[in-house]
Amino acid sequence: MIDVEKRAIRVRNASRVLCNATTTKKNALLKMIARQLKSESHQITKANAADLSAARRSGLSEILLDRLTLSEKRITQMIAGVEDVIGLPDPVGEVLERRKRPSGLLIEKIRVPIGAVGIIYEARPNVTIDATALCLKAGNTTLLRGGSEAIRTNSRLVGIVKEALSKVGLPTSAVEFLNTPNRKAVAEMLRQDRYLDVIIPRGSHKLIDYIRQKSSVPVIAHGEGNCHVFVDSSANLKEAEEIVFNAKVQRPSVCNAAEKLLVHKKIAKTFLPKIAERLRSANVELRGDSGTLSIIDDAMPATEDDWYREYLDLVLGIKIVKNVDEAIEHINHYGSHHSDSIVTGNRRNGEKFLQEIDSAAVYINASTRFTDGFEFGLGAEIGISTQKLHARGPMGLAELTTIKYKVHGTGQIRK
Amino acid sequence: MIDVEKRAIRVRNASRVLCNATTTKKNALLKMIARQLKSESHQITKANAADLSAARRSGLSEILLDRLTLSEKRITQMIAGVEDVIGLPDPVGEVLERRKRPSGLLIEKIRVPIGAVGIIYEARPNVTIDATALCLKAGNTTLLRGGSEAIRTNSRLVGIVKEALSKVGLPTSAVEFLNTPNRKAVAEMLRQDRYLDVIIPRGSHKLIDYIRQKSSVPVIAHGEGNCHVFVDSSANLKEAEEIVFNAKVQRPSVCNAAEKLLVHKKIAKTFLPKIAERLRSANVELRGDSGTLSIIDDAMPATEDDWYREYLDLVLGIKIVKNVDEAIEHINHYGSHHSDSIVTGNRRNGEKFLQEIDSAAVYINASTRFTDGFEFGLGAEIGISTQKLHARGPMGLAELTTIKYKVHGTGQIRK
Repeated sequence: MIDVEKRAIRVRNASRVLCNATTTKKNALLKMIARQLKSESHQITKANAADLSAARRSGLSEILLDRLTLSEKRITQMIAGVEDVIGLPDPVGEVLERRKRPSGLLIEKIRVPIGAVGIIYEARPNVTIDATALCLKAGNTTLLRGGSEAIRTNSRLVGIVKEALSKVGLPTSAVEFLNTPNRKAVAEMLRQDRYLDVIIPRGSHKLIDYIRQKSSVPVIAHGEGNCHVFVDSSANLKEAEEIVFNAKVQRPSVCNAAEKLLVHKKIAKTFLPKIAERLRSANVELRGDSGTLSIIDDAMPATEDDWYREYLDLVLGIKIVKNVDEAIEHINHYGSHHSDSIVTGNRRNGEKFLQEIDSAAVYINASTRFTDGFEFGLGAEIGISTQKLHARGPMGLAELTTIKYKVHGTGQIRK
Repeated sequence: MIDVEKRAIRVRNASRVLCNATTTKKNALLKMIARQLKSESHQITKANAADLSAARRSGLSEILLDRLTLSEKRITQMIAGVEDVIGLPDPVGEVLERRKRPSGLLIEKIRVPIGAVGIIYEARPNVTIDATALCLKAGNTTLLRGGSEAIRTNSRLVGIVKEALSKVGLPTSAVEFLNTPNRKAVAEMLRQDRYLDVIIPRGSHKLIDYIRQKSSVPVIAHGEGNCHVFVDSSANLKEAEEIVFNAKVQRPSVCNAAEKLLVHKKIAKTFLPKIAERLRSANVELRGDSGTLSIIDDAMPATEDDWYREYLDLVLGIKIVKNVDEAIEHINHYGSHHSDSIVTGNRRNGEKFLQEIDSAAVYINASTRFTDGFEFGLGAEIGISTQKLHARGPMGLAELTTIKYKVHGTGQIRK
């Protein structure tokens, strides 16, 4: 087996250089990566073809094969992503606070890179470049562990990043890759708390749960999105219909898609038949509580388990509630604290919902689908955190930094 | 055994109320806690006397007995601490960013309470009140697990907080306490990731390591302080002597005390005999590298292990280095990333040190002893974080909060 600890140490040591790299240097690196991706796109698609044929032989599903595919078009998108990151302002060095204390000390709170970041992800090989570009721009080094199906593609992509590092005179160990299908390598990586500052897992709920349980390195989990839309009695029902339809149907496989609809009992009889018809037209399966079933007769009964579930599919759970309080209680209890929206004409109910819902993003009169780094104005994102520590919601460059206190004295000692 | 999960659920549910409590309400609660502590100080000392006599019978060391003692004077300090927290501004509700996006969405990033905080600590019972007061002011609820020797004192203190909660009309489960000496309760607490948002351990390196390994709840570790002072060749040697002496001797048992002295080789022969004499006068044991031993003949030889150690005692490791680069490399390799200081007359070396040392607090020309919440102007602190995620350095009220995005729309859907 490859020596995971040795690679973690290399990434740690390289971070001592990267954390002091200038913005100009880091952008030169990203430009070089973009250039190499362009000139070596043929080798990338070749490596990807080998991964795909091996995956086909082993019987990978069509959905996973699609995720694994790195077409010319996707390579172009990946390059555009790197170019976007070049354009983002460098967060490192920002002075967040500056205080002169009675002791005479000048205390500055400065944004600095986190250091060495572990990233564990599944099928999609574009993550190798997307995540690495963001980490490097924020002055971090990375230890990557991708899905075993993508191992040839990822090896090639990491090779390209290493060439670019070498060409601009930065340590090639700023990016290391665990190029082994051996699952023990992941367990080993989770024990590198001496060398890695954080692990960011991206993938299935099962993968993330495993990592959270086993890791002695701090984890920033990108959990599931059991997102809700609550349609209040005072809602503009046409607007509500558009929002619910968009939140459910526009891209059902992503974490900010709505999975549940809560409807105020006063408007249930008017609203539910309309939205049901609209959703049916998009082949959405409806699962309702007993009140819903009495209005929409082709809905399936929802089980207790349904209220907790993230379908990531064309399925919607529907429940009738008696007021905004019951909606809030339901969402805080069953939700995953990702993104939830109220559609209402009542300002007070709206503000109450925003205040009391314990989620990363809470909306009045908009689709939950807006929770992402681009829409929120952070630029590219490395993911969406559903935990509360360090980063909550879309994680951009700033969330890939930490702080340090720089203190200027003139001989002060503590009395 | 007591039902740890049940208490974690209660704390979680109470947090739904506390997170929406107004500043006025939270301050009324803290005033009530201060009042009850005053009026019940006799019962507290009585409970403490029972803990102390049990601890004496079981042979607890004098140092630990001292930490366990809650004298009238310490109770007065504890009350003053609560009154300080009343005076601090409430961080909850602060608008950190506000952006109008091209989509028309108004996105606000708001400071909100973390939620339910687990605190695991050892002998000192004052932590029960200090930590709880800070958590409550930031709108958090707490599940406490104190040292088993302090169980009677802690039970009484938690009883007082619960009375205060009840008197001001807040849920008494805003603070729960695991009043069992059974160590399995800790293991059980570390598995409550469904109900606790974070665990803050305070205590020995061993305790914190155990918690970090076992917890599925995110942990904010308060690690050790292997702090350094580097005396550069251009240092004002009188100033350097005062800073080294203060950093080592003023309070050797705390995490921001210096444990290592690095001296530039050009001034070693002048500086080392002076500082050695000064430190000897305070009974500091000196352990040096070979260069140091050739100058100070009564120093003991330092082992490799010494360079990693936090003594928390009147012991100092001394090493001669050839320049600021070697000092930086040594500190980043052997240090604990807590607080490190350079004494120098060379501005460039100073700034290089501030930039390249990877520690929570880095100083030019001042004692490392200043790393704390009061000295940094954060007000009271719940501890000093040596990790990089969420909070680094002194943790005050702001570090006991997280953020949430509130989004105001007018019917926006994602294209």
